[in-house]
Amino acid sequence: MGKSRLEAFSDGVLAIIITIMVLELKVPQSGELVALRPQLPAFLSYVLSFVYLGIYWNNHHHMLHATRNVNGAILWANLHLLFWLSLFPFVTGWMGENSFAPAPTALYGLVLLMAAIAYWILQYAIIASQGHDSLLARAVGRDIKGKLSPVLYVLAIFAAFFNQWISGGLYVVVALMWLIPDRRIERVLGDS
Amino acid sequence: MGKSRLEAFSDGVLAIIITIMVLELKVPQSGELVALRPQLPAFLSYVLSFVYLGIYWNNHHHMLHATRNVNGAILWANLHLLFWLSLFPFVTGWMGENSFAPAPTALYGLVLLMAAIAYWILQYAIIASQGHDSLLARAVGRDIKGKLSPVLYVLAIFAAFFNQWISGGLYVVVALMWLIPDRRIERVLGDS
Amino acid sequence: MGKSRLEAFSDGVLAIIITIMVLELKVPQSGELVALRPQLPAFLSYVLSFVYLGIYWNNHHHMLHATRNVNGAILWANLHLLFWLSLFPFVTGWMGENSFAPAPTALYGLVLLMAAIAYWILQYAIIASQGHDSLLARAVGRDIKGKLSPVLYVLAIFAAFFNQWISGGLYVVVALMWLIPDRRIERVLGDS
Amino acid sequence: MGKSRLEAFSDGVLAIIITIMVLELKVPQSGELVALRPQLPAFLSYVLSFVYLGIYWNNHHHMLHATRNVNGAILWANLHLLFWLSLFPFVTGWMGENSFAPAPTALYGLVLLMAAIAYWILQYAIIASQGHDSLLARAVGRDIKGKLSPVLYVLAIFAAFFNQWISGGLYVVVALMWLIPDRRIERVLGDS
Repeated sequence: MGKSRLEAFSDGVLAIIITIMVLELKVPQSGELVALRPQLPAFLSYVLSFVYLGIYWNNHHHMLHATRNVNGAILWANLHLLFWLSLFPFVTGWMGENSFAPAPTALYGLVLLMAAIAYWILQYAIIASQGHDSLLARAVGRDIKGKLSPVLYVLAIFAAFFNQWISGGLYVVVALMWLIPDRRIERVLGDS
Repeated sequence: MGKSRLEAFSDGVLAIIITIMVLELKVPQSGELVALRPQLPAFLSYVLSFVYLGIYWNNHHHMLHATRNVNGAILWANLHLLFWLSLFPFVTGWMGENSFAPAPTALYGLVLLMAAIAYWILQYAIIASQGHDSLLARAVGRDIKGKLSPVLYVLAIFAAFFNQWISGGLYVVVALMWLIPDRRIERVLGDS
Repeated sequence: MGKSRLEAFSDGVLAIIITIMVLELKVPQSGELVALRPQLPAFLSYVLSFVYLGIYWNNHHHMLHATRNVNGAILWANLHLLFWLSLFPFVTGWMGENSFAPAPTALYGLVLLMAAIAYWILQYAIIASQGHDSLLARAVGRDIKGKLSPVLYVLAIFAAFFNQWISGGLYVVVALMWLIPDRRIERVLGDS
Repeated sequence: MGKSRLEAFSDGVLAIIITIMVLELKVPQSGELVALRPQLPAFLSYVLSFVYLGIYWNNHHHMLHATRNVNGAILWANLHLLFWLSLFPFVTGWMGENSFAPAPTALYGLVLLMAAIAYWILQYAIIASQGHDSLLARAVGRDIKGKLSPVLYVLAIFAAFFNQWISGGLYVVVALMWLIPDRRIERVLGDS
């Protein structure tokens, strides 16, 4: 199987996930401006998830760009990643509608963690099939961001039961870490 | 008509089905962790359906990969398959929200059975158009998994009215049978 | 603009319309088999709309297959067609949830009629741009089915206020007329 | 990264946004014709948003058609545009369900304004990467429509708190301005 089908299907699923999340923003009954206020946490969690899915879409494509062939292991590792990403609308909605309450905030971090692990497994499956001197293996390198993110997610999950704003802050930090172009942050983290 | 349009449309429909299923996971009103517990059956049925749709997507592509041209019969056989797959969100939601009650569990099996029959019809329509020594005809071979699955679905539908966990177990068994790479299980089943 | 973008976008919209219609099938609260009975009209209207959208997808592709270039008029005629098709989930849900009551059954026919007119406009825009001896102009020919369908829709809209089963029957007849392969029915209708 | 992936993903997201908006048209409980009347404002706001998204899809493609390569800035500027467009179902639903009340009508204009700014940023990012004598830079030219639209949106936002029909009228005017083929209106506006 060529990789184009995998790309097209993943693109489709990611496009749908990123878009149906907006259905969790419930249209207020009242037409007053104040009726928007209870929607503010839901909006913030929507923005956060939109950025995360954008990052995943971006990285997913760079990864597949450096991939030649697709085998069964890669295919199922990819579906596994899409599975965890498909839970974004649910956890985004739960966190937003409960104003970042501890349990939803922790569950949000758990889904981020599982997606990060699924991404790592997919990366591993591709490198295993392409060889350790492949383009992808060299591009990934020491993968400092990939190793730091899960650690920060675990911290955020535990922090949610003490102060959920620490968790929220950590989610924002990880997102920014991936948003800022690669080389610079890797050099910074590599030096520290 | 070339097959690429059929593939793209089927990819789109499958990507949407697999993703909108998550909308049946209702976001709990309460932000307590215990509020997730009533969602557990819905989550399990979501996982099961996600795996089944992943298997269908995977097999559908292998089948079309071995197809050269598309005629009217193939086109409508494909839409017929998509129709039954499109009922997955409904039956997944009904089974999940009623904690695997007998009737929803049986209906889930009925939709699985109809999808399997629709898949078989599509396969038959393609082989009829491509010839019996075609790549697909040889790849399908004795099609032991394809013949065993409907039998197990029928068993599961009847079992649902006695003990729905037998049905659930059978659905998992069929899914695993398809997940495990082809040659090995065919050899195992072929020997038995 | 090449036609491939138009095809891809139309495919996407049609795939989504055909799939989100299933969200109008409300998952029953109860897990009893009898809880499905009130859903039967909704299911029937879902099947009907699924077949209609399948026919539109099929014909849309044949039409674009015979199209070389896309201009602004074609592009907006296509969006106009997609607009009426996008109302299918709404009218399908309304007709189904009210057990084919007169007003929803008539509105369903109105949307079918508008979609048929929009399709005719799109066909006209393409022929106008490609020339009257173009492949499409010759393929369309006298277009008996295309002229008969709107007449039957108008009949069905009026019939809905007397006996809605006549309307339902007419909708099924038009769908069958398009499902049966082209040449045969054209010859039959051409002779009569 | 080639631009085809960006196009495919944007097409997918736009196709989904334009289609799920219809889910905000709530299917009336009653099957009487009068039950449609309260849905009329929702229908009108649906039509308006459908036209706007059609215009964005159309212009987005012309813009990318004149683009050679995609870099990180273009990619994120594109996601930023999709973010604001993804809020269309929410603001369309809120405005429609509250019969064009002041606050929802103003918020609708705000999302239109942000989308216009995001479009301008994307255009700027592409021109910055392609050079100021590039095809796109020359095609955009003085960009009178692009400069006039935000001004009209701002006017409409303020007008909403006095007379929301002025706002609605301005939204229709901007849409018509973009619908009418480019050269003519540019000449008209250029002379005035």
